Amino acid sequence: MKYPIRVVISGPSGNIAYSALFSLLSGDVFGKDRLIDLVMLCSCPNSSQLQGVDMEIVDCAFPCLSSHLCTSDQHLAFANADYVILFGALPRGPGMERKDLLLKNKDIFEQQGKVLNEVGKPSVRVLVVGNPANTNAYILQQNAPNIQKNHITALSRLDHNRSIGQLAQYFNVSPSEIQNVFVLGNHSNTMVPVFNHVLLNNKQCYDEIKDVTNISQTIRTRGSKIIEARGQSSAASAAQASLDHMRDWHFGTEKITSCSLPAPKENIYEVPEGLVFSFPCKCVDGEWVIQDMDIPDELNTQIQKTIDELIEEKILAQHE
Amino acid sequence: MKYPIRVVISGPSGNIAYSALFSLLSGDVFGKDRLIDLVMLCSCPNSSQLQGVDMEIVDCAFPCLSSHLCTSDQHLAFANADYVILFGALPRGPGMERKDLLLKNKDIFEQQGKVLNEVGKPSVRVLVVGNPANTNAYILQQNAPNIQKNHITALSRLDHNRSIGQLAQYFNVSPSEIQNVFVLGNHSNTMVPVFNHVLLNNKQCYDEIKDVTNISQTIRTRGSKIIEARGQSSAASAAQASLDHMRDWHFGTEKITSCSLPAPKENIYEVPEGLVFSFPCKCVDGEWVIQDMDIPDELNTQIQKTIDELIEEKILAQHE
Repeated sequence: MKYPIRVVISGPSGNIAYSALFSLLSGDVFGKDRLIDLVMLCSCPNSSQLQGVDMEIVDCAFPCLSSHLCTSDQHLAFANADYVILFGALPRGPGMERKDLLLKNKDIFEQQGKVLNEVGKPSVRVLVVGNPANTNAYILQQNAPNIQKNHITALSRLDHNRSIGQLAQYFNVSPSEIQNVFVLGNHSNTMVPVFNHVLLNNKQCYDEIKDVTNISQTIRTRGSKIIEARGQSSAASAAQASLDHMRDWHFGTEKITSCSLPAPKENIYEVPEGLVFSFPCKCVDGEWVIQDMDIPDELNTQIQKTIDELIEEKILAQHE
Repeated sequence: MKYPIRVVISGPSGNIAYSALFSLLSGDVFGKDRLIDLVMLCSCPNSSQLQGVDMEIVDCAFPCLSSHLCTSDQHLAFANADYVILFGALPRGPGMERKDLLLKNKDIFEQQGKVLNEVGKPSVRVLVVGNPANTNAYILQQNAPNIQKNHITALSRLDHNRSIGQLAQYFNVSPSEIQNVFVLGNHSNTMVPVFNHVLLNNKQCYDEIKDVTNISQTIRTRGSKIIEARGQSSAASAAQASLDHMRDWHFGTEKITSCSLPAPKENIYEVPEGLVFSFPCKCVDGEWVIQDMDIPDELNTQIQKTIDELIEEKILAQHE
């Protein structure tokens, strides 16, 4: 087995983590030959819920499991972490305004950013899954200037996978036959799926998609449709998307995928520098590389809308 | 990608299936290069719960997913199936006697056995997970004489993994350092963990285990401890054990593992022929090979007890 990497999971007793943790420890993300030091960061590390999850982890006898720890101590958790997946965030409660949600989560991610900045390795790789993921990642990044900027990411892979899934259904093919789809912007219903580069079995097929608006709308509203159907939010598909993101980050990918990153100085899609925005990316040697792919002019209004939303979230979260 | 194999899952909207399905489709069981035709067999294929699971499967854009189908038609499901995982079983309800439970499940598995017998490939590989798993598998086998006998198995891998997990904790090592543990008998609290062959980093360590009785008791009662802690039964670890079982069946394993199989004619551990009993096994070329490993005489009473329980379950289930 290869030397252990330290993986920190926040929100480990939540449904998404319960769907993600076991696949992760089975070696599906970092490889079957890679030992994992697992840290579960939780405000109540002694809760019976989390202890139950921890018992089940023991019960799987994962050959990859080198050590496992439940803690509420962020300093202990983040020191020497190689990968951090932040599932934990305050969910929107009854009667809670969007602004309240942003402010509450701001406190969580500001605090985590400060500790990461203090004790984290500059190279630590962070994925924010807890919503509002893009703005949570923005707050984290603003508070952690010592961490490599493009190592603080947010999940847009779920929207990306949903886009491929919808096109695979549309063409009635296996998802493996669809490539070069990506999504731009915020993980919210302003997100913009982009289809003009899409390949079906390596052939351009954009002109064959007659129903772009409807398909985009299906992707944008998919989360609420799942809640309607299941009576619970989409845990397993969000978990799989998180694992896809981490696997590609660890092993690299030559395929176009979607990753939310702090927008770079170079003006790409007119996104203001620093906003955490979903871009088309490849991943090479552990680094996301934004692909500046051209998009149809008719998407410009939609892209401005998702940029405006991210700016608004940032202002709301900054407002004390 | 390799040609698709047809995998049938019963009880697809249950918690164990929800924990298993997504890892299975990610390629963690049959390989990342193997297409899967997934059939979800359910008495209510149009339930919004199952439709939600099916939507999430689409949303993962699994490259391995060749097709997916929800159906209540057992003939349609089992025809041409390569692998069948039967998560579905009637759980014990309030006020229900053990005999009632056995009889209700007898009806389910008798029916499934008959259909499998009628339309299934003789080589189809079946894993029963729904409890009482061993006796459910026994009923299935009795009704499906056309199916290769040793291809009808029940899950004892969870008990096996729990045994490794407990020893790894005992010695404070990674589970990968523990080998040659196995469990005998029924998946119930009569199950017998066997430690006299255990290797710690390839060295005999049986004499170092001072607390065999306590460790065995922890393993046997683990399921109810998890329910106490989580408030729900152990879904993720049962799912992972099911996937471990199927992966080893598909790819083979040279390591000692535990698998519940119809007991062969040859007298092994004095188990009556046909009882579905957990044996130490390797898996070679897609076939479980029972390893007739010697056990300490002091376990004989415990083994007789688990045999007696299986005989009693069989008689209760046969009683109309």
